[in-house]
Amino acid sequence: MRDMFHEELEGINTSLLGMAAMVKEALDQACVSLTTANLGVAEQVIAADENIDDTQHDLDARIINLMARQQPVASDLRAVVTALRISADLERMGDLAHHIAKLARMRYPNKAVPAELETIIQDMSKSNERIMEKMVTVLQYRDLTRALEIEQDDDEMDRLHRLLISTLLGDDWAYGIETAIDMTLLGRYFERFADHAVSISHRVYFLVTGEYAKKG
Amino acid sequence: MRDMFHEELEGINTSLLGMAAMVKEALDQACVSLTTANLGVAEQVIAADENIDDTQHDLDARIINLMARQQPVASDLRAVVTALRISADLERMGDLAHHIAKLARMRYPNKAVPAELETIIQDMSKSNERIMEKMVTVLQYRDLTRALEIEQDDDEMDRLHRLLISTLLGDDWAYGIETAIDMTLLGRYFERFADHAVSISHRVYFLVTGEYAKKG
Repeated sequence: MRDMFHEELEGINTSLLGMAAMVKEALDQACVSLTTANLGVAEQVIAADENIDDTQHDLDARIINLMARQQPVASDLRAVVTALRISADLERMGDLAHHIAKLARMRYPNKAVPAELETIIQDMSKSNERIMEKMVTVLQYRDLTRALEIEQDDDEMDRLHRLLISTLLGDDWAYGIETAIDMTLLGRYFERFADHAVSISHRVYFLVTGEYAKKG
Repeated sequence: MRDMFHEELEGINTSLLGMAAMVKEALDQACVSLTTANLGVAEQVIAADENIDDTQHDLDARIINLMARQQPVASDLRAVVTALRISADLERMGDLAHHIAKLARMRYPNKAVPAELETIIQDMSKSNERIMEKMVTVLQYRDLTRALEIEQDDDEMDRLHRLLISTLLGDDWAYGIETAIDMTLLGRYFERFADHAVSISHRVYFLVTGEYAKKG
């Protein structure tokens, strides 16, 4: 039978998973609002960011409360500190999904993404979706194989990001400065989103193995 | 006489101040490398980021060690958790200074910032320097007046950021897409740097008062 501390820690990890699901949904919907110029969906993502922030707030309060009451040491303490850090990463990922939805809203009724970039942006969205799915598996099952795979998915994200920038810089770029600025920021949001997912996966890897993840 | 816990916490706060000084220096020098196209200075900032990362690593290990040995509760626990969060903010600010220096290096021997934007970029640098100075005062002396002032400095940063973007979008923008992309990212780095400083100041404010800082 698990003791009180580990039961509560399990509850916290379940809440972290719930928060990750909220962030994943926010990203998915932000990408939908972006590629279909759907104002209603964009507004939902923007409004839902407050729920993510509230969830982090509650979760952090529970984590600190658990620390105060149970006074964990060694690996238990590290697990609790890791939970705090993961909730901070997830909160920031929620902000980035919110930024993407705001870009969709700002350009409505037009599409924020010009036709020429639709494929790259969709590939970046899919790349982040894949990263998020694996990150959730890493969080839920401490799956270290997936943790190493995420490194490669992140390399693919970096490659797409470079492709995006080189397209903006091509001689045949016909969409002007404003769209180039939008796409520069969008590329940065996607890339940072992936960085935080990688960071979460690293934290879990380190917690389980005591070593830093190396590229597979 | 202070007990062991508070002595160690004071040591940790002193190290946080040292880390803040490293980050401030990195930002100052990154701005110098940017505005003077000085490759040597840019390389120094890029190399120094590793020291900031190592400092965070050591500091976090000390904080977790203090938690494990002394098992703080209530306000002591909150102070320790806040120290962990502040070190994470500072580490990220170091990364942003590093990004700025990398931009200077990438465009060397040219200046990354075109003549037309030099004033805005210098104003943004100065704005961040002011924010950093106040943030250090907030960290060192728990100075709540300065914590509230930072809110206004951050509003000024946002104003400069909007001015930067509107200059890029002006009909007379003559520097092409590449420079527009550089300046979009630079603006974002400056703005994020300020956001983290504001976040640190909020954390201290909350720690001291138990309330969230409101704009003065």
